[in-house]
Amino acid sequence: MHEWQYSERARKLTSSAIREILKVTERPEVISFAGGLPSPATFPVEQMRAAAERVLTDTPQAALQYSATEGFAPLREWVARRYSRDGLALSPDNVLITTGSQQGLDLIGKIFIDEGSRVLVEAPSYLGALQSFSLFSPVYVPVPTDVHGLLPDALTPELVSGARFLYAMPNFQNPTGRRLPMARREALAALARRDGLVIIEDDPYGELDYEGQRLPSIMSLAPERVLYMGSFSKVLAPGLRLGFIIAPPAVIAKLVQAKQAADLHTPSLTQRIAYEVVRDGFLDTHIPSIRTLYAAQAQAMLAALEKHMPAGTTWTTPAGGMFIWLTLPAGIDTMQLLEKAIEQNVAFVPGAPFYVGTPQANTLRLSFVTVPPEKIEAGVGRLGALVAQTLERRAA
Amino acid sequence: MHEWQYSERARKLTSSAIREILKVTERPEVISFAGGLPSPATFPVEQMRAAAERVLTDTPQAALQYSATEGFAPLREWVARRYSRDGLALSPDNVLITTGSQQGLDLIGKIFIDEGSRVLVEAPSYLGALQSFSLFSPVYVPVPTDVHGLLPDALTPELVSGARFLYAMPNFQNPTGRRLPMARREALAALARRDGLVIIEDDPYGELDYEGQRLPSIMSLAPERVLYMGSFSKVLAPGLRLGFIIAPPAVIAKLVQAKQAADLHTPSLTQRIAYEVVRDGFLDTHIPSIRTLYAAQAQAMLAALEKHMPAGTTWTTPAGGMFIWLTLPAGIDTMQLLEKAIEQNVAFVPGAPFYVGTPQANTLRLSFVTVPPEKIEAGVGRLGALVAQTLERRAA
Repeated sequence: MHEWQYSERARKLTSSAIREILKVTERPEVISFAGGLPSPATFPVEQMRAAAERVLTDTPQAALQYSATEGFAPLREWVARRYSRDGLALSPDNVLITTGSQQGLDLIGKIFIDEGSRVLVEAPSYLGALQSFSLFSPVYVPVPTDVHGLLPDALTPELVSGARFLYAMPNFQNPTGRRLPMARREALAALARRDGLVIIEDDPYGELDYEGQRLPSIMSLAPERVLYMGSFSKVLAPGLRLGFIIAPPAVIAKLVQAKQAADLHTPSLTQRIAYEVVRDGFLDTHIPSIRTLYAAQAQAMLAALEKHMPAGTTWTTPAGGMFIWLTLPAGIDTMQLLEKAIEQNVAFVPGAPFYVGTPQANTLRLSFVTVPPEKIEAGVGRLGALVAQTLERRAA
Repeated sequence: MHEWQYSERARKLTSSAIREILKVTERPEVISFAGGLPSPATFPVEQMRAAAERVLTDTPQAALQYSATEGFAPLREWVARRYSRDGLALSPDNVLITTGSQQGLDLIGKIFIDEGSRVLVEAPSYLGALQSFSLFSPVYVPVPTDVHGLLPDALTPELVSGARFLYAMPNFQNPTGRRLPMARREALAALARRDGLVIIEDDPYGELDYEGQRLPSIMSLAPERVLYMGSFSKVLAPGLRLGFIIAPPAVIAKLVQAKQAADLHTPSLTQRIAYEVVRDGFLDTHIPSIRTLYAAQAQAMLAALEKHMPAGTTWTTPAGGMFIWLTLPAGIDTMQLLEKAIEQNVAFVPGAPFYVGTPQANTLRLSFVTVPPEKIEAGVGRLGALVAQTLERRAA
């Protein structure tokens, strides 16, 4: 093709840092903390097999035929029931099933972003969201954060006015693992109600709350202004590519039209299998088992960091989710560090790609869910030694 | 939400005519020729059940985990092998698995269309493609057709120059059922090679060739300039949402990046199930059985049209696919006719929405694959009577 035949957005497309890193880390000798892959030990294989058998025995033709863009009606009802809490009363009209949560981001980009639209994002923010939104050429406005996450006070009227939306991940954020405190959720909801700010509340990890102290969603505090995104990837299996958006029906109607053009509908088969698995309360026993596993993995990594990281390195202590965020001593560039780490057969994701503004170059993300504890210890050991060497070399 | 918070494309979104019609025709008493649903009698239910069982027994964790954006490697290889014919030698690097062919349209729109880009389409053209492309605000240029389909001679240098691509469906086109003759395929390929025209060759129905006289693809004549789109929806089952794009590796690379932002990857489970079903030559016996069924359905509808349609009505005689295109006597507006047809419990899709320029208002599309032959006879009978009445009323 000639270059001019591509769209401007295609000409700007570059392969993501995470993606390139994941390619390298497929070598078995690499201990990779880079991936965001849920532990396959948590996949309910027996339940999935039984569900697939039932669906393809009881309703094969419906499971293999075209179906409604909105999603499988019983699955929408299930989502509506499950999230009718904290004072919210949802109906299936509030729910759109998406082909993974990632598709939700694409559809939201489509219906809200024009070229040059201002979009508010946390600094740092989820890379996959930035990639999706970027195809529609917004102007990102980074919102400052502290150790507890996004700072609502930073959302001045000038920042909010004219912004298409704020994109935020309040629970165990990717990449930082931070959870937004209740008072800040209330402050954001108040802004949404008072100033009309639209909030995209992305919540793939909310169920992975190790201490069982769930905080109410921002949606429950300002349902008219919030699009809430959920996912089956972390509580069931990511290979199904099943997510959902909860929003006011008028917004769902717009999203449905965008989804119709995007893939007509999410596969009938996977929706019905997932529904068969979750319909009778399976998640009530399954999710606690994931929490127990991941909490132990998090503990293993926190202990290893405590043991191996040189002074001057700090990290988050997540109460859920999959990630720990490290801040190394100032002056260490984690993009450069990664090259050396790969040589030592250990991998992470540098912090820079998660920033839309000036990156904090001495940060990095570690996932603690894919690698077993004994390898966590070994991998963090290598990483700690590498950081120590880098500091010594700079001192010399 | 405030109206200004939506993107311009969202403000322009309107529900499709086909979609609204399908809602009405869900009433069981309606004989609907409107849908493009494959006959569920053709779904290989036993094979799908056995395949799901094997996949979830042999490789459950891989089938439930995140996987490569490009698609399941053995399925890409299978596609590459199957389409290495007519002189083409494809590799898996030429193949991207998509979440239905519809997603292929969205990705192509993303990487080729800027606001105002000129896009050439047949008059009439596939509505689902127009809906997808329209989200990226192209300027459509309709290309005239005759009874054999698109007229290559109409593609003047002025029309071709600066156009991002030509979108065409050469086999049993939706909505007309026409197949493009070999000489015209060669003429289009020559234009592509000589003038750099990019051609999107959409081919969901190519395998449904009743007489087994397949014509070479345009891709096989100009592989460097063609993106070929295929689908498992019409030969296996649409509820899987599985399609693919074959293109030069550099184009695949762009599409992969767009797909990563769109849904990360097509579900691992459905890809592996489909591969299990097709890997050992199942389609070699399955597709002929679909052809036989659909050929009989087509014959039933052609016979019914012959019997019931008043003089002055003409229609296409498709050699494959799912659709017949009717041209009623001049002056009959099929959008108005549809309202009366629904009252008579028979449905079709009016021709107008398939045109990007001035519509031919006396055309309509009939699908012959979903409704059994006895109902085809009854439905076409009602439709013929309605057209006759309309003509009488106009004469009176």
